[in-house]
Amino acid sequence: MDILKKTVEGIAKHSLEVINRVDPEQVDLMIDTIMNARSVFIVGSGRSELVGKSFAMRLMHLGFQVYVVGDVTTPSITSNDSLVAISGSGETKTVTIAAETSHEKGAKVVAITANTESTLGENMDVAVKIESKTKIPWKHHTSHVLKGNYDDLTPMGTLFENTAHLFLEGLIAEFMARMGKKEIDLKRRHSTLE
Amino acid sequence: MDILKKTVEGIAKHSLEVINRVDPEQVDLMIDTIMNARSVFIVGSGRSELVGKSFAMRLMHLGFQVYVVGDVTTPSITSNDSLVAISGSGETKTVTIAAETSHEKGAKVVAITANTESTLGENMDVAVKIESKTKIPWKHHTSHVLKGNYDDLTPMGTLFENTAHLFLEGLIAEFMARMGKKEIDLKRRHSTLE
Amino acid sequence: MDILKKTVEGIAKHSLEVINRVDPEQVDLMIDTIMNARSVFIVGSGRSELVGKSFAMRLMHLGFQVYVVGDVTTPSITSNDSLVAISGSGETKTVTIAAETSHEKGAKVVAITANTESTLGENMDVAVKIESKTKIPWKHHTSHVLKGNYDDLTPMGTLFENTAHLFLEGLIAEFMARMGKKEIDLKRRHSTLE
Amino acid sequence: MDILKKTVEGIAKHSLEVINRVDPEQVDLMIDTIMNARSVFIVGSGRSELVGKSFAMRLMHLGFQVYVVGDVTTPSITSNDSLVAISGSGETKTVTIAAETSHEKGAKVVAITANTESTLGENMDVAVKIESKTKIPWKHHTSHVLKGNYDDLTPMGTLFENTAHLFLEGLIAEFMARMGKKEIDLKRRHSTLE
Repeated sequence: MDILKKTVEGIAKHSLEVINRVDPEQVDLMIDTIMNARSVFIVGSGRSELVGKSFAMRLMHLGFQVYVVGDVTTPSITSNDSLVAISGSGETKTVTIAAETSHEKGAKVVAITANTESTLGENMDVAVKIESKTKIPWKHHTSHVLKGNYDDLTPMGTLFENTAHLFLEGLIAEFMARMGKKEIDLKRRHSTLE
Repeated sequence: MDILKKTVEGIAKHSLEVINRVDPEQVDLMIDTIMNARSVFIVGSGRSELVGKSFAMRLMHLGFQVYVVGDVTTPSITSNDSLVAISGSGETKTVTIAAETSHEKGAKVVAITANTESTLGENMDVAVKIESKTKIPWKHHTSHVLKGNYDDLTPMGTLFENTAHLFLEGLIAEFMARMGKKEIDLKRRHSTLE
Repeated sequence: MDILKKTVEGIAKHSLEVINRVDPEQVDLMIDTIMNARSVFIVGSGRSELVGKSFAMRLMHLGFQVYVVGDVTTPSITSNDSLVAISGSGETKTVTIAAETSHEKGAKVVAITANTESTLGENMDVAVKIESKTKIPWKHHTSHVLKGNYDDLTPMGTLFENTAHLFLEGLIAEFMARMGKKEIDLKRRHSTLE
Repeated sequence: MDILKKTVEGIAKHSLEVINRVDPEQVDLMIDTIMNARSVFIVGSGRSELVGKSFAMRLMHLGFQVYVVGDVTTPSITSNDSLVAISGSGETKTVTIAAETSHEKGAKVVAITANTESTLGENMDVAVKIESKTKIPWKHHTSHVLKGNYDDLTPMGTLFENTAHLFLEGLIAEFMARMGKKEIDLKRRHSTLE
């Protein structure tokens, strides 16, 4: 289990470092954007979609009206809504199309990305920059974080996905504190049909 | 393409016959139940879940707040809500568990099933009986419809699934007429993010 | 229930007419393409994705290795595989991107579409033309079928989706006949974990 | 962002502690079980299902044939296959039903759970015990880890889900090392159709 433990330690250390460098102003903006939205839409692809769904469930538990792009019950987005778009490279087609359309419709777009100088960047209002290695290399890349030797043990987008996920877990705690919500409040909204 | 065409004709003929025998009172009750629900929950398994999701999308287009059981953004059900439960045999575990829990919580349960004398039957308030052959044989079975020879060309739950689906397509038209909704109204709610 | 029944009759009649006009040569080509593929990939969006998933399950029951684009366990496509792409307009982004990439990789692309003169058309090897009204109007449109007055009762892509679905149900029967498979063979592959 | 950072640190610290206490023999058994399976099936519910899907994708990247229970293309399980079942409480109905059926069919069942003395425990062959607080309290509970004061900031199953997820991320690294796989090998299998 040495490699297993070393990998988990590596992911944890990396995530904490990267989250410490996230711009607090953008985090406040993200919270305000979600608080002021009539409905919150979430989009991601592959493992980033799973990260988004995990966040979506907790936002629902907090009382927000949340929709995942691609779900059959997701309506059209309006200027009263906001979109949280998750893409390490900022170039995932399904994500950039959703961000562009949302932006055109007047919805606020929050980007969770490693690469703010990407196609996603052109349509975002708020940017939470997660400076992790992602699946796809990109041009304007300056972070020294990526120079680690975890490449093989944390393949492709692993570091970005885990850091984004842990950031969003922490953000749920921020929401709880600011909204004065306790665990019991979230439990009341938790689905019991499965 | 002879077998293909014969199969489609068989499904169409069967569906029309079975839908003609559905109790109109239960259909009215189903419409009222959905109209009066704060949120409509949909549950099914396998191909019956796909039938339910297809219906869920159109209900959303009509302006209803709709949730599919199992989606991450689906909250807990309350006594103000209703559940549409789709199961040919009425014995699918995921469906009967959802129906039982919903019933206990005071939500109205609408069953779309071939078998009203099933576990699903014990927890339903409204029953749309689709008398088609289903995946699983059952005890209290009297319909002559199942005596057809389509078994191999429409394997397992095919006849039930198609009949239930076409019934729900027709129901959407009923909703549109009663609510005075036109195609353009539904289009406005259609997701444009994909 | 008059509107309900009239709508179901309208869908059934329309589907039979349109399926009668499908080119049998393309159907044979579609069957050969699937038979010769190492793995069959399915792509669609919204209700067309549900149609594709319904077909995917039966192909799996028949013994094929099947993947739905967007599922987490779906691998990269290769030149030994084939893609079945479902889009009424032939312009749905998620579908045209998948078709283009598959085509570039040397995989065979089967299009189920109302509009063969579309972006999807540029990357397809086999075309099953379902001449139904779709969600999005298109340019090169000649079919008189669309001149019906079902627009409001069968909103948006309803006629295309139902016709494509019934066509694929019939195709499963064709596969069963050609492969000498009986219902019992399909049942053996049916998931029992839910 | 103080609460956010404190929460992420809490999750990371907790996860490392709990993973350090996982029985290495059971981890080796889990690896062997997956290595020797013809197909690997994954089951979970809610956020635990997302954890399972994240793991499923990487197993697919490694070259395994993987199926998620509930996906339309998932076939019936056989005695040559194995099931990875994820449930904090070990009592989630959809998970225990899948484990029981798999066990009866002769498939090996690997449980990822906080509670090995649960319904899931009765049908498992391998147990990876993740001693974290879960959504549902249970009887035979002895771990002091749960005595933490993270309850409100990491509501319901958060600690279990994150620890299970990080454990499985580490396990992928173990697989890579033992199988001699590099990042480039995983990339080749990564879907490029989205």
